[in-house]
Amino acid sequence: MPQAKGLEGIIIDDSAICKIDGSQGRLIYRGYDIHDLASSLAFEEVAYLLWNGNLPTSEQLKQLNNELVRQRMIPEKLKSAIRDLPATSNALDVLRTAISILGAEKPLKKPDLTDAIAISAKIPTINAAFDRMRNGREPIEPRDDLTHAANYLYMLTGRDPDPIKVDALNKYLILLADHGMNSSTFTARIVASTWSDAYSAVVAAICALKGPLHGGAPAPVLKMLQDIGTPDRAEEWIRNELKSDRRLMGFGHRVYKTTDPRAEILRSIGEKSAPKNLIELAEKVEQTGIRILQEYRPQRKLYANVEFYSAVVMHSVDLPSDLFTATFAASRSIGWTANILEQVTNNRLIRPETEYTGPLNRKVVPISAR
Amino acid sequence: MPQAKGLEGIIIDDSAICKIDGSQGRLIYRGYDIHDLASSLAFEEVAYLLWNGNLPTSEQLKQLNNELVRQRMIPEKLKSAIRDLPATSNALDVLRTAISILGAEKPLKKPDLTDAIAISAKIPTINAAFDRMRNGREPIEPRDDLTHAANYLYMLTGRDPDPIKVDALNKYLILLADHGMNSSTFTARIVASTWSDAYSAVVAAICALKGPLHGGAPAPVLKMLQDIGTPDRAEEWIRNELKSDRRLMGFGHRVYKTTDPRAEILRSIGEKSAPKNLIELAEKVEQTGIRILQEYRPQRKLYANVEFYSAVVMHSVDLPSDLFTATFAASRSIGWTANILEQVTNNRLIRPETEYTGPLNRKVVPISAR
Repeated sequence: MPQAKGLEGIIIDDSAICKIDGSQGRLIYRGYDIHDLASSLAFEEVAYLLWNGNLPTSEQLKQLNNELVRQRMIPEKLKSAIRDLPATSNALDVLRTAISILGAEKPLKKPDLTDAIAISAKIPTINAAFDRMRNGREPIEPRDDLTHAANYLYMLTGRDPDPIKVDALNKYLILLADHGMNSSTFTARIVASTWSDAYSAVVAAICALKGPLHGGAPAPVLKMLQDIGTPDRAEEWIRNELKSDRRLMGFGHRVYKTTDPRAEILRSIGEKSAPKNLIELAEKVEQTGIRILQEYRPQRKLYANVEFYSAVVMHSVDLPSDLFTATFAASRSIGWTANILEQVTNNRLIRPETEYTGPLNRKVVPISAR
Repeated sequence: MPQAKGLEGIIIDDSAICKIDGSQGRLIYRGYDIHDLASSLAFEEVAYLLWNGNLPTSEQLKQLNNELVRQRMIPEKLKSAIRDLPATSNALDVLRTAISILGAEKPLKKPDLTDAIAISAKIPTINAAFDRMRNGREPIEPRDDLTHAANYLYMLTGRDPDPIKVDALNKYLILLADHGMNSSTFTARIVASTWSDAYSAVVAAICALKGPLHGGAPAPVLKMLQDIGTPDRAEEWIRNELKSDRRLMGFGHRVYKTTDPRAEILRSIGEKSAPKNLIELAEKVEQTGIRILQEYRPQRKLYANVEFYSAVVMHSVDLPSDLFTATFAASRSIGWTANILEQVTNNRLIRPETEYTGPLNRKVVPISAR
């Protein structure tokens, strides 16, 4: 019998990065409540916090900003490589390939903060360059005078971004930056545990984030909202999905047994940044979904998860839905790299076992006798 | 306190693919002892076995061979992409990038046997193309009339390969094809558990295999043997390494508490395929290493592991040492894909937890007050 299928509840290590209190619905980065971090800080400050353990002084923040800005540029050769991929590629495949190409220029070495900054700085540039090129447009060079969030929106459109949208994206990037041993972060730690390099660890994390059970959920949530169309259709639509045994996207989370605090904050961001009809529809679908899911599973209440309102917020800042997961990567890369650095500080190779349930004592017979 | 750091001894799932008996030193694929499989079968038969659960009939083997041969070719565009990577790239970075590029042309879908065949068929072609191009030569097209092992050697040199070398490589490819929940296979299963695709899962596995604590060990073993030079220098050299607190490469394995059966078989292969002075040196270093390590760790006997004689065998078939790990990938891709297929057949998202050990209840203060 499997002893820990899915590793639910198995604690793989100590970590000083992130605490999830699933029963209270609290999320803490390095001792700070996620509400406090999202309400007043720049994404760059939170990146500093996750990487270094403390919030930066103004001098430290200035230095990090300079480094991030300097590292935003991507080489012309990488742009050509992205252009050579099919325009119909999944943005995660493009990001995975691009980080892999960048890593091929680096020697195999122990991951360090320089790697973390270089990788995290370039993800928005890669995403935006792909989005421009697949639409037959030239990529836009990053601007030095814009924040991480503002520059991302700028590189997508070439226009000065709306401050409300910048604020919404900045908060989104903070909220999704880390979340314990989610599958992609765990993958990154395993790769780091073999003494592989930071680029390999991040590439592997991207591979895991792509999956619809992990980072791939927000786009289907938006599609669901668009399919439902108007609040009055929510109940019928949801009942129909559940009757047909389809999974309702954007509800339920392995760790949270109450509302995901990120979903609540994202809802309130959406109330400012999203069109009124979209946020009203989302809130109606959320309430209806919770109620109907409770009928189906009275023993466990399911809530809207982070993907549900991520979809609303990302749509509200004009991101195309097929960039949602790649934008999630732009945020989670901070957590990946913070975890990679923590893993290599006190490493032990991560290697579990399986229980063999197949046949035994078979004898090889010649192929003519099979 | 970490409850399962490194996940040693934690059973993550049932599996009918591979059984490792670490105390008896036995390795079983799908019910067949590795000695029996390596002594008489073609790599293609073992690939069929690992993927399908049974050894093929001649008709089934013919079909698989046809499929593998058909899938060996790589597109011209991929060759250009490999050519665009630095000639000094780590071969694992090249392989990772190449599989990622191939994956970018595929839709996100549930992994299937077609993916497994396509990926496994192309890895030798990618490795050989990179090796040719980094040396300023043109890649060599695969040959339809050669086995997987023979064609790999042919694509590297353009010459008809020596049958003794083909046999040695064929056996190596069988021996390394699967090995339970090693870190790269585990990584592949996690990625598959998110409903990501087969290419992503294999890319992530390559990222983990690169690490020196996993697939990266054979090249340092060869370097060690070359540094030692002659059998009479083994004792002094090893004592000096251990005195300087350096890790002796090629000894010890988490799972085996006795000799790794693969190491024994590889030793006997090396006795046929390797130059006499190399195999004599290796055997002396093996015996000396075991004896001296026992002095240092009397409580646990360490043995030569699979990497130790992998290095000897791969060198004996003329593989450059910086292709050793990429060649390991050509073998282990069978196990990766067999495990990916098993994972998606009875899936549960793999997501463990960490124990938070950082500060709590910190209050955000304005940056001017930090």
